Amino acid sequence: MNELVFVGLGLNDEQGISVKGLEEIKNADSVFMENYTSLMPNFNLQRFEALCGRKVQMLERHNLEDEGGKTILQAAKIGKAVFLVPGDPFIATTHVTLRIDAEKQDIQTRIVHGTSIMSAIVSLSGLHNYKFGKTVTVPFPENWSPTPYNVIAQNKQAGLHTLCLLDLKASENQFLSINNALKILLDAEEKNKKNAVTSDTVTLGVARAGSDSPTLKADFVKGLVSFDFGQPPYSLIFPGDLHFMEVEALIAFAGAPAAFRGLSR
Amino acid sequence: MNELVFVGLGLNDEQGISVKGLEEIKNADSVFMENYTSLMPNFNLQRFEALCGRKVQMLERHNLEDEGGKTILQAAKIGKAVFLVPGDPFIATTHVTLRIDAEKQDIQTRIVHGTSIMSAIVSLSGLHNYKFGKTVTVPFPENWSPTPYNVIAQNKQAGLHTLCLLDLKASENQFLSINNALKILLDAEEKNKKNAVTSDTVTLGVARAGSDSPTLKADFVKGLVSFDFGQPPYSLIFPGDLHFMEVEALIAFAGAPAAFRGLSR
Repeated sequence: MNELVFVGLGLNDEQGISVKGLEEIKNADSVFMENYTSLMPNFNLQRFEALCGRKVQMLERHNLEDEGGKTILQAAKIGKAVFLVPGDPFIATTHVTLRIDAEKQDIQTRIVHGTSIMSAIVSLSGLHNYKFGKTVTVPFPENWSPTPYNVIAQNKQAGLHTLCLLDLKASENQFLSINNALKILLDAEEKNKKNAVTSDTVTLGVARAGSDSPTLKADFVKGLVSFDFGQPPYSLIFPGDLHFMEVEALIAFAGAPAAFRGLSR
Repeated sequence: MNELVFVGLGLNDEQGISVKGLEEIKNADSVFMENYTSLMPNFNLQRFEALCGRKVQMLERHNLEDEGGKTILQAAKIGKAVFLVPGDPFIATTHVTLRIDAEKQDIQTRIVHGTSIMSAIVSLSGLHNYKFGKTVTVPFPENWSPTPYNVIAQNKQAGLHTLCLLDLKASENQFLSINNALKILLDAEEKNKKNAVTSDTVTLGVARAGSDSPTLKADFVKGLVSFDFGQPPYSLIFPGDLHFMEVEALIAFAGAPAAFRGLSR
């Protein structure tokens, strides 16, 4: 059987993978993994190899992007290759190219999905999933872009929530903090005046989504600019129109001030 | 330890759960499950109980919605209760109320996330996740609403993709088909003329996302109105602006006609 099975590792640690994913590894001829497209803060390769009973070959960015994943494709031409990817295999689009190349070379591909950080954040928040508009990433200041602010403004205009992922360089252990992301967006407000991110704007900060101890804190922006969220990774949600049940969720799960009760429609 | 742990069952069958989720069951004092908020077509309770080595108490909609989940809350007051939910526990918002009630009664809550059908569909499509706008459900004709058509039109206007979930009554084995959903949307086009869903609109149908054999077919609407997608459940994606890599993905993964190559920006 020559095939390439993309398996999602899910979130946080070596136990984020599905039972199905673990079974796929057990009868694979070769097992590859990358850990650069997303962060799994508590993942330990030795423990994972013990769990699945197999050696895992770790690949770096250059193996996939410069060499086009040829190690994986070669393995998949002569047997069943499993490629392990943090989160869900294609929520970051990096590996779509590899899958297209495999299909063009008549290698069958399959996907065993994993939990994605994006749905975990939405799920933790208690906000209504169907009310989220476009998602955006807030980059480090040196890569400043007007897009995040504009996306928040557009979504808010349409009454929609915005999920903002905050940039990270996992390999260098650098993470854009919630405090700094808010400062970047407040600066953009100063210049653009769309009333999208002011000190009185409602926002929800989330740290360590998918771990055993996430921190959630909802407040007006002015209450979050100096809040200590602890360890990364971080994200922010800017709610659009809030249903009263969403307000109750923010109060119960994210310690929002009772003043939020005046905000729902 | 009195706590309530919401555990996502993930997709398709009893192996969709994460390893972490399975561990939570093993040391729980009581284990509950519901299977009405989402469809797991190949889930077998006996096999699942064998997998986790525990008896699972199945709850119906009325246990949760009319009785407010009091069986679960009572169990969580005297020990560790695990509540198993298809997909991710809070992507459908049904159980947010239960979690709020638990927190108000000083029961600690935790979430072990599962794969959500929404991220699985996006992942299968090869389309860029950050280019999706608001998601919408197309209801059965007897519950007709102008919303789905309008959401597609608004997203398209902003260059964004729309994920349309198609309505289902899992307990009655009724599923809105892709063919019928397209007819409903073409009717809405006739009345509204926003040029959002015509016979020449690009679309992607997805059946059985998360299973071992999903069917994906991308084509112009006229090519999909009579296409046979096989067994449910079903969804549709209406792409907004397409990047050339997204077009290549639709050709490689969803058999899109080569004419799609003229569409990318």
